[in-house]
Amino acid sequence: MPLYILSDHRHLIEAGQLTDQTKNASPLTLTTGGDQAEERIASLPLIAGVEFATAATGIRYQDRSDVMLVRLCADTEVVGFFTQSSTRAAPVLDCEFKLQSQTVSPSAIFANSGNANAFTGADGFAAVKRIAAGVAEELNISADHVLTASTGVIGEPLTPDIGKILSHMPGLKSSLSPLGMGEAARAIMTTDTFPKVAATEIKTPSGPISIAGIAKGSGMIEPQMATMLAFIFTDAKISRMALKTLVNEANSLSFNAITIDSDTSTNDTLLVAATGTSHHPELTRKSDKWPQFSHGLESVMASLAEQIVRDGEGAKKLVRVRVIGAANKIDADRAARAIANSPLVKTAIAGDDPNWGRIVMALGKSGAKLSCDQLTISIGGHPVAENGQVATDYRESQVADYMKGSDIQICIDLGIGKASAQILTCDLTHEYISINADYRS
Amino acid sequence: MPLYILSDHRHLIEAGQLTDQTKNASPLTLTTGGDQAEERIASLPLIAGVEFATAATGIRYQDRSDVMLVRLCADTEVVGFFTQSSTRAAPVLDCEFKLQSQTVSPSAIFANSGNANAFTGADGFAAVKRIAAGVAEELNISADHVLTASTGVIGEPLTPDIGKILSHMPGLKSSLSPLGMGEAARAIMTTDTFPKVAATEIKTPSGPISIAGIAKGSGMIEPQMATMLAFIFTDAKISRMALKTLVNEANSLSFNAITIDSDTSTNDTLLVAATGTSHHPELTRKSDKWPQFSHGLESVMASLAEQIVRDGEGAKKLVRVRVIGAANKIDADRAARAIANSPLVKTAIAGDDPNWGRIVMALGKSGAKLSCDQLTISIGGHPVAENGQVATDYRESQVADYMKGSDIQICIDLGIGKASAQILTCDLTHEYISINADYRS
Repeated sequence: MPLYILSDHRHLIEAGQLTDQTKNASPLTLTTGGDQAEERIASLPLIAGVEFATAATGIRYQDRSDVMLVRLCADTEVVGFFTQSSTRAAPVLDCEFKLQSQTVSPSAIFANSGNANAFTGADGFAAVKRIAAGVAEELNISADHVLTASTGVIGEPLTPDIGKILSHMPGLKSSLSPLGMGEAARAIMTTDTFPKVAATEIKTPSGPISIAGIAKGSGMIEPQMATMLAFIFTDAKISRMALKTLVNEANSLSFNAITIDSDTSTNDTLLVAATGTSHHPELTRKSDKWPQFSHGLESVMASLAEQIVRDGEGAKKLVRVRVIGAANKIDADRAARAIANSPLVKTAIAGDDPNWGRIVMALGKSGAKLSCDQLTISIGGHPVAENGQVATDYRESQVADYMKGSDIQICIDLGIGKASAQILTCDLTHEYISINADYRS
Repeated sequence: MPLYILSDHRHLIEAGQLTDQTKNASPLTLTTGGDQAEERIASLPLIAGVEFATAATGIRYQDRSDVMLVRLCADTEVVGFFTQSSTRAAPVLDCEFKLQSQTVSPSAIFANSGNANAFTGADGFAAVKRIAAGVAEELNISADHVLTASTGVIGEPLTPDIGKILSHMPGLKSSLSPLGMGEAARAIMTTDTFPKVAATEIKTPSGPISIAGIAKGSGMIEPQMATMLAFIFTDAKISRMALKTLVNEANSLSFNAITIDSDTSTNDTLLVAATGTSHHPELTRKSDKWPQFSHGLESVMASLAEQIVRDGEGAKKLVRVRVIGAANKIDADRAARAIANSPLVKTAIAGDDPNWGRIVMALGKSGAKLSCDQLTISIGGHPVAENGQVATDYRESQVADYMKGSDIQICIDLGIGKASAQILTCDLTHEYISINADYRS
C-alpha cells in the first residue's frame, strides 16, 4: 500500500513546522472526500483492546445502524474534550463529570445518532443514567465507567426510545469485535453522506503503535474545543496527562480549526482512548518516538476534521483559508474565521466567482489588525490584491478557472507581524438551504 | 391620513420605555415591506433647505438612476456615523476626515450605486477628490464641504467612470428640487427590491418640525455603528453636538440592531442633516419638544432599519428576536445576535419549521450567561421551552402554523437578570444563495 502524506500537513512541512523526525510518521490514509471512504475503512488497523458493535434501533432513522458500543480493555486511559456551549447536552455533562471525578478511566462508550438528548431537562439525565446502567449490566462493569454521546435533533426527549435501545444490549454485547470500527463510523452518522475514519501507524523497534479514529459532522459545525462526535483509539502506552496535553495541542490544528456554518453544537464530544496494548514502552516527552506519535495523532485528527468539512452540509468545495503576517495568533485566527464564516464569501465560492472584494470585507469586519497598504490576497497562488488595490497582473478569467475546482486555497498576508493560522471551511450552497430549511435534520 | 404607530416601537411602549409625552409623536409612515413604498414616497414631507437630484450615468446599472446629489442650505448641521470596518472605503475615510476637520458643516452630499470605491488604493481617493471637485465647481462651494458615499462591488476601480459621472453635473444641478427625495431613494439602490423612505412630523406651537430619511441595504448587513447608506434630513434647529448625541442613541435601537447576513460592509454611511429652517426655537435637552423630536428621529431610523431587513437579500420573513432577563446589556445583545445570525435558525425559519432546538444551540454558543433551568423560549407568544426542556403544553402544529406567517417573533428569557435587547433579522433562503452565488451582485 502506498504511504500517503495527508494533504493537510503539506503546508506544515512547507512552512518548516515539522521536524525531519516527525516527517517519518506514515499516515496510512489519504484525506479526500467520500469516494475513498470504503478504501479507508478497509485499511483500518485493529487496535488491541478495543471492540466495537452497532445496531439499528430505529430511534429516528430506518434501515440503518444508529447506536454504537465500544468496549475498552482494562488500564485504558481515556481523555475527553467537549463543546464549550452553555446549553451542553446531558451526555456531555455526564461525560465531563465522570472523567473529572473518577480516577479509573472508563471502559465503555455508547453513542446514538438521531436524537441529541440536549435541552431535555431532568429526563435527559435520567435517560443517560438508564443507558449507562444497561451497558454496565451487560458488560458487568460499573455504570460510572460508561461514557455516552448523542447526536441529532435538539430538544426532543430521548426517554420514549430508551426501551428500544436497552432491548439491543444483549445483541450488541455478543457482536463486539475489533473489526467493527468501520461500522461504528456509519452508526454515528446523521446528515453525513459518508463515514469518516482515519488511521496511522508509528514504526518502533518493539513493533508498531497504531492510532485510528472515527468522526461524524455535517452541520452545526464550528467546534469550540472539540467537534461533533469523534472517537480515537490507540494501543500506545501513555499516561492520561500526557495524552491530554497531546490531544489538546492537536485539537487546535484540527477540530478547532474548521467551520462549516459558524454554529456550535450542544453535543460536541471528542474521546481519545489509549489501551497501552502495544509492545513499545510508555511514551513520554523524552521518548524517541514522542514526536512521531504526536504527529501521528495530529494527522488522524486533522484527517477526520478535513473529512468533516468535505462532507459539510451541501458542500461542494473544500476551502483552505490561510492567514500569515498577523500581529498575533488571535488576530490570525480571527481574520481566517471571518473569511471562513462569511456567507458572502462562501456563496461567491459556491458560484465559482473570484469576488475577492468580499474577502476584503470579511477582513475589514474581523477586528484583526491589518495594513491596507501591505495587505496581499492570493487565490490558488494567483495574486489578486496587493498594495491596497487589485494586483497589477490580475486576470479574472485565470482565477475564475481556478475557482471551478473542488479545492480552493485562499492566502492572506495581513502585512503586520509573523503569526499565522489556517481554517478549513466549505462553500455555502443551495443544498445547505435545502437540507436545513426543507425538512428537519 | 391615519397616523400609524411604527410596529417597531410597540414593544418599547409595552415595556414602558417610552414616556407618555413621547407617545404623542406621530410617525406618518407605516413600517411594512415594499408594497407600500410608493405610498410612503408620496407622503414624504418637504424639508425646507434640502434639494435632491438624480441621474442615470450607467456606471453599472442600465436604464435606472444611479447617482444622487443633495444640496443643503447654509447653516445646516451635519453629523455622520460610519462602518467600523478596518477596510473602510475611500469615500468613508474622506467623510470622516471632513466631518472631523471642518468647523463648518458640509453643504452637499453625492452618492453613487454600483461601485463601492473600496480597496481601490490611491486611485480611490483621487476618484473621491475629482467627484467632490466636480460638485463644488457646479454648486460654487468649497470641495471641503462636499461629502460622498458609494455602494456596490468592492475592489473595482471607480476611476474609469469618473468622466461619465462628471458629465452629469450640470444636469444634476439644474434639476435640484425639494421634491426629489423619493427619486434619491431609488438612485442609491443596489440589490434592494424597493426604495426605503420614512418620515415623521412633530407638532409645535410655532409650526411642525419634520424628519425624513432614505436608506439602502440588502446584503452585507450587520452594521457596526451605522448601516449601508442612510441619509436623514430635518428642518429642526439643533446644535451639532446635540444632534450627534441623539443620533448615536437612536442608532443603537435601529441600524445597529439589525443583521441580514452577519457581514459588515466597507461602506456603511449614515448622514443626518438638520437645516434649522423650521420656526421652532433651537432644540436642547431642556426643550419641551426634545422627547418628541428624539422619539421621532428614532422612529424614522427604526423604520428605515426595518425596511432594510424586510428587503434583505432573499428574505421572505421579518424576524424579531427579543431577549430579556439577561445579566447585562452586552449579554442580551450577544444572545439576540447569536440567534439572529445563526444559519441553522434562519434556514429553519425559511422552512416554516419551529425547530427551537436550534435556538437553544445558538444561545449555548453565544457566550451569554444563562440558566438552563430558568430559560424560557416562546415563538409568536406560544411557550415552546421552559424549565430546561420542552414546554408542557407545547403543540408543534400550533407553532408550525404561526411559522407560516411573514412576521416571526422569538422571545427569550435568559432567567438571569433584567437587561434586554432586540435584533431584527430575516430568514435565510434559496434566493440569498441565488443572489450571491449565481451572479456577482
